[in-house]
Amino acid sequence: MTKITAQELAKKQKEISVAEFFERNKHILGFGNQTRALITSVKEGVDNGLDACEETNILPDIYVEIKNHEDGECKVIIEDNGPGVVKKQIPHIFGRLLYGSRFHAIRQSRGQQGIGISAVVLYGQLTTGKHAKIISKVEEGRPAIVTELAIDTNKNRAEVISNTTTHWDKPTGTRFEVNIIADYKRGKRFVLDYLQSTSIVNPHAQIIYREPNGDEHIFERTTEVLPRKSIEIKPHPYGVELGTLIKMTKNSKSRKLSSFLKTEFSSMGDRTTNAVIEKASLEKDLNPKDLSREQFLALHKAFKKIKIMAPSTDCLSPIGEMLIKRSLKHETQEISPEFIITASRPSSVYSGNPFQVEVGLVYGGSLPKDDPVKLLRFANRVPLLYQQGGCITTKAISSIDWRRYGLNQPSGKGVPSGPAIFLTHISSTQIPFTSESKEAIADIPEIENEIKLAFRECARKVQHHINKKVKRAKTREKFELISRILPEIAKKSAKMLEKPVPSLDKVITKIMDVVWIEDIIEYEKVQRAPVQTTLIEDSPKEKQREGIITKSRILIINYKRSPQKFNLYAIIPEDAVVGTVTPKPSKITNNYIKWNLETIKPSNKVNINYELAGLDTGDFDENDLYIENINPTYVIGADKWEGD
Amino acid sequence: MTKITAQELAKKQKEISVAEFFERNKHILGFGNQTRALITSVKEGVDNGLDACEETNILPDIYVEIKNHEDGECKVIIEDNGPGVVKKQIPHIFGRLLYGSRFHAIRQSRGQQGIGISAVVLYGQLTTGKHAKIISKVEEGRPAIVTELAIDTNKNRAEVISNTTTHWDKPTGTRFEVNIIADYKRGKRFVLDYLQSTSIVNPHAQIIYREPNGDEHIFERTTEVLPRKSIEIKPHPYGVELGTLIKMTKNSKSRKLSSFLKTEFSSMGDRTTNAVIEKASLEKDLNPKDLSREQFLALHKAFKKIKIMAPSTDCLSPIGEMLIKRSLKHETQEISPEFIITASRPSSVYSGNPFQVEVGLVYGGSLPKDDPVKLLRFANRVPLLYQQGGCITTKAISSIDWRRYGLNQPSGKGVPSGPAIFLTHISSTQIPFTSESKEAIADIPEIENEIKLAFRECARKVQHHINKKVKRAKTREKFELISRILPEIAKKSAKMLEKPVPSLDKVITKIMDVVWIEDIIEYEKVQRAPVQTTLIEDSPKEKQREGIITKSRILIINYKRSPQKFNLYAIIPEDAVVGTVTPKPSKITNNYIKWNLETIKPSNKVNINYELAGLDTGDFDENDLYIENINPTYVIGADKWEGD
Repeated sequence: MTKITAQELAKKQKEISVAEFFERNKHILGFGNQTRALITSVKEGVDNGLDACEETNILPDIYVEIKNHEDGECKVIIEDNGPGVVKKQIPHIFGRLLYGSRFHAIRQSRGQQGIGISAVVLYGQLTTGKHAKIISKVEEGRPAIVTELAIDTNKNRAEVISNTTTHWDKPTGTRFEVNIIADYKRGKRFVLDYLQSTSIVNPHAQIIYREPNGDEHIFERTTEVLPRKSIEIKPHPYGVELGTLIKMTKNSKSRKLSSFLKTEFSSMGDRTTNAVIEKASLEKDLNPKDLSREQFLALHKAFKKIKIMAPSTDCLSPIGEMLIKRSLKHETQEISPEFIITASRPSSVYSGNPFQVEVGLVYGGSLPKDDPVKLLRFANRVPLLYQQGGCITTKAISSIDWRRYGLNQPSGKGVPSGPAIFLTHISSTQIPFTSESKEAIADIPEIENEIKLAFRECARKVQHHINKKVKRAKTREKFELISRILPEIAKKSAKMLEKPVPSLDKVITKIMDVVWIEDIIEYEKVQRAPVQTTLIEDSPKEKQREGIITKSRILIINYKRSPQKFNLYAIIPEDAVVGTVTPKPSKITNNYIKWNLETIKPSNKVNINYELAGLDTGDFDENDLYIENINPTYVIGADKWEGD
Repeated sequence: MTKITAQELAKKQKEISVAEFFERNKHILGFGNQTRALITSVKEGVDNGLDACEETNILPDIYVEIKNHEDGECKVIIEDNGPGVVKKQIPHIFGRLLYGSRFHAIRQSRGQQGIGISAVVLYGQLTTGKHAKIISKVEEGRPAIVTELAIDTNKNRAEVISNTTTHWDKPTGTRFEVNIIADYKRGKRFVLDYLQSTSIVNPHAQIIYREPNGDEHIFERTTEVLPRKSIEIKPHPYGVELGTLIKMTKNSKSRKLSSFLKTEFSSMGDRTTNAVIEKASLEKDLNPKDLSREQFLALHKAFKKIKIMAPSTDCLSPIGEMLIKRSLKHETQEISPEFIITASRPSSVYSGNPFQVEVGLVYGGSLPKDDPVKLLRFANRVPLLYQQGGCITTKAISSIDWRRYGLNQPSGKGVPSGPAIFLTHISSTQIPFTSESKEAIADIPEIENEIKLAFRECARKVQHHINKKVKRAKTREKFELISRILPEIAKKSAKMLEKPVPSLDKVITKIMDVVWIEDIIEYEKVQRAPVQTTLIEDSPKEKQREGIITKSRILIINYKRSPQKFNLYAIIPEDAVVGTVTPKPSKITNNYIKWNLETIKPSNKVNINYELAGLDTGDFDENDLYIENINPTYVIGADKWEGD
C-alpha cells in the first residue's frame, strides 16, 4: 500500500459553514430525534417570545399552536405580544445561525447564543423542504410584515422568498410559523410538561397552547408583576482571560490604563483600579494598547491578587425562595407532600460571570418510595428537560451522601431513591450549557460547589425539621402520659385518703422540666385592591395587595421549676411585610422579629401573635423559632439562636 | 416603566463569529475547567496525529510531552510521523474553526468536525496570550516549515506571526506546540488514562509520553498491522433528509434523475434506482434540478418504501471482538477476572450513517463488589473520558434489568453495581456527539437499540457461561462422589465376600447417565517471522506470523448405558486460522469445525484435538461447544446446536 502525501490530503481540506456544520450535527442543537425536535422547536420560540417581552417591559402573552399532518409533518406556530422585529433584522435573526442581541450583553436572559430560532428554521427546511414564515408588527396602526425565508447553508445567510404586508390585530408582536418533521404522538406529553414548567417559573406570563385536536390549555398568569429586569453589566476582572484582556484593549477607546480599567470592567472604582495598577508595577497613564505581553500578564495576575468587589447582581433575576416554594406546592398539590423546603445561595462568580443557585426539596406524600428522586432543573427560568445525566446539577446531587437524610443510595453516591423531588434553578449572565441545545449545564467547579452548598443547607433544614418533629413528638408523648395518668392516681389516692384532689401543675412541671413552645398558623382573606398597571417587582409593598394575611400564634408554657426569662426570635420570609405584633417586640428586621420576654413563672403561659402580609396561603406554613439566654436543651419547639 | 421598541432592540442585534462563540463557550469544546483543558489539548493533538498517519498508511509514532511551568501554565507538545501539512493549509487547519478534510467525507475517522486542534490554539491564546507553533515537514530531504500563529476571533481566521524553516530529522511529520493554562496536578492521572486507553484500542500505534519531571512512558505497538482503512462512501438514501436531497440536486452535475440517484448515493444500482423512480411516479430522464417540492417529497418517500441494501461497511473500521477481549485482558490483568465476554453487532444505519457496536464485559476477580460497574466508552477508537452520564451508552446500559445477571440494581434501572467492567465501542462515519467536545454520544434511538442488543447478547453469553459452569460443577460433584465412594464399597464388599473387586465402569455409567465433555486449551510458542513491511489488516493470513499456536483438546466420555452417535460443533474465532484437526472433521467454515462422531460405546472415550493460529495467548480461553442429534439434557459441557 503506497503512502499518501500531504499534498493529496490538502486537496480535501476545506471550510465548513456554520449552518452546514449544524445541519449535519442537528442533534447538538436539540434535534437528535423527532420527539426532541418538536419540543426544541416550541422551546426556542417560547424562550424568544418571553425574552423579547421582558426586555421591553411587556407582560408576555404567548400563543403556541401545533398542527399535526398525517405524514409526520407538524406545523408549529408561536406568537408573542413583544415589540416585533424590524424588517431589516428579520432575515438575520431567523435566517442566520450565530446572530443576535443577547450574546454580547452580560445579563440574564434565556437566549444567549444567537442560534436557537434559526436552528428551528434550518431543521424545518432540512426535513420538509418548506420555508419558515414570520409575521412581525413593530408599531401600532401600521401593517405587519410577512416574510418567508430559508437558510442558504453554504453561506449561513437567509434567502428571503417573499416579503409582503398584512393587517394584524395585535398592537405589536411576532408570529413564527415553521413546518418540521416531528413525532407529535410521543412529543405531546413533553410539550405540555415544558409549557407547564415554564408557566410555573414565569408566573407573569400567560401561555395559551392549542393542540392539533383543537383542545386549548390556558396557563394563566398568576402575577401582573414582571420579574425584576436584569441589568447589563461589564465583565468582572476575576473572570477575564488573559487573551480577552489583550483583545479588550484593542477594542477600547481608552488611551490610559486607568480609564480603560474603570470603563471596561465592573467593580473597578478609583481605589481598586489604583491598587491593581500598583500591584502590577505599571503606570496609570500607559496607553493600554502599548502594553507588552509581560505587562498584560502582570496586570492579569494583579487582578487575582487584589480583593475586588463581586459584580453587581442586578444582572441576575432569580426566582426567589417564596416563588419556588409556591411553584412546588402547586406542582405537588395532588401528592400532599409532608414538607417543602427551599434554600437560596448568595450570588457567586465563575470566570467572571455572576450566577446564583436556588433549590427546593419536596418530601413524602404519595411520591413513589423506590424510584430515583425526581430532579427538576431550571436555568434562567427555562426548564431543562433532557440530558439530566450529563448535567452538573445531577453530579452535584449525586456526590452528596443522602443516606443520613433517610433516602436510599447504594454506597452513598449517585442519584438517591425515595419519595422526594429536588428542584434546582440557576440564574446567570451566561449559563455554561454543555452544548448548543441548552439541556445540561457543564461541569464548572464553582457552580457544582454552590449547588452542593444549597442542597446541604436544604438537607440541614430537613434535618432540623425532622429533629424538631421527633423531639416534640417524644416530649408530647411524655406530657400526655403524665397528664393522663397523674390525675387518675391523684383522684384515686385522694378518694382513698378521703382528701381533696391536689393541684398537679407543680408535679407536672417537675416531671416535664421543659419550656414548651408550640405554634399555629392561620390565613385570613382580606379585600384585594384591583390591579391597574403593569408593575415591576421592585418593592415588597406591591405585594400587600395580594389579599391574604398570615396569622402566626405562638404559645409558650414554662414547665420548669424556676422562673424563666429569655429572648425569642421568629424568622420571617424576606418578601413578607410585618403587621400587628403582640406583645411588643424588641426588634424587627427584614429577617426576624425579636422579643425580650418578661420572666415567666413556673406553670405560666405567654401568648405571642404576629401578622404577615404579602404572602399567599401556605407560603409560610411553619414558624422558625430561636431562643437566646436560656439553655436550649430545656426548650421544646425552638433552637439556639446563632446570631444574625 | 416605558416600553422599548423593536428599533431600539435592533441596534444591539449583530453577528457572532464562530471563534468568538466558542471562545465564550469554551466548555462546549472541552475546556470547561483547567483539568479538562489539559486532557482535551492532548486528545485533539493525538487524534489528529493518528488520523493523519492512518489516512496515509503510516504506522503512527506519536510523541507527547508536557512541560509544567510554575504559574499554572503548561506547554503541550504533540508530534507525529504523519505526512505533514502543506504550508498553505497550516493557517487554515490550525488557525480556523470549522475547517478540515474529514467533515465532508463519509467514512470513519476520529476528527470529523474541523474544530478540535484550532480550538486548542484558541484556548491557548485566550488563557496565556501566546501563539501556537507548528512544525511541518511534508517531504524527505527538504526543510521543515515553522509557523507561529494566532486566531483572529472576530474573523475566525489565522493571524500568521512568523514563518521560517528548520532542519528536522523526521522524514515527514507534524509537531504542534501550544501554551495553555491547565491544572497539571489534577489532570496528570487523566492524561495517562487517556493515552493508555488510546494505546489499547490502537495497538498499531506507538505512543511515547514524557512527563514534566522527565519520566517517560512508552506505550509500545503490539501489532505492525494497520487497521483496515476505512473507505469513503456516498450518502445512503435512507438517511438523507428532504432538504439535503433538494440541495444535492443543486450541487450535482447529473442532468437525469436516474444518473443523479446512481452517482450521488450509495447502494443505488440500476434495479433499485428504477424501483425508486417508479414508486415515486417520476420519469428517469427528468432533470433533477427541475423537480417540484411535491416531486422531491414523492422521491424522498419512495426511498423509504423500497428495500435498499445497507451501505457498505468498508467505511467502518471496528476494533474486532478478539482485540477487545485482548485489551480487556490486558487492562484487567491485575484483577484476575472470572471471565471476559464480548459481543459484536452487525453494522446498522442511523440517518443514513453506517455504524457498528461492539461490547465487552469483564466479571469478577478483585473488582469492587459494591461500586457501580465501571463503564469504558470508545468512539472510533477514541476513549471517551467525560460526560458519562449524558452518553447514550450509559442510558442503554441503564435500561437493561441486570438483576437477573447477578448485579445489584435498585428497581431494575440505572447503572448496576457489582464486580464488572462494561466496554462499549461505536464506530461510525459520523459519531453523533452531544457536543463539539466529543465526550458523549447523543440519544439516537437506532444506536441505543444496537447497544442494548449487544449487551443483551453479552448477558446471554454470561448466562450461558454460568449455566454451563453450574451444571458441570454439579455433575462433577456427583461424579467425584461416585468415583470415590463406589470403589470403597466395592473394595470392602469384595474383601468381606473374599471375591475380586468388580469393574465399576458400568455401574458408574448407570448412575451418571450422561455424556461428559470436557476441554482444555494450551498455547505453544512458535518461531515468529520478522516483520518487514507495514501491512494492512486485510487478510487473516498476515496474522499467522504472530507466533502462538492455540491447542484445544476435547475429551468426550460416554457415561450413558447405550452407545451414542452425534455431531459436535466447536465455534472458532473469526480471525483464527485452523491448523491440524483430529479426528478428521466433516466441515470447517469461518465460524466452526464440525465432527460427525462415530458411535461411542458406553464407558468409551473420544479425544478431539485442533489447533488455531493467528491468536495471542489467552485470546481463546474457552471452547464454545454444541451438539446435534442427541438429547442435550444428557450432555454436560455442550449446548444444543441451533443451526448456523
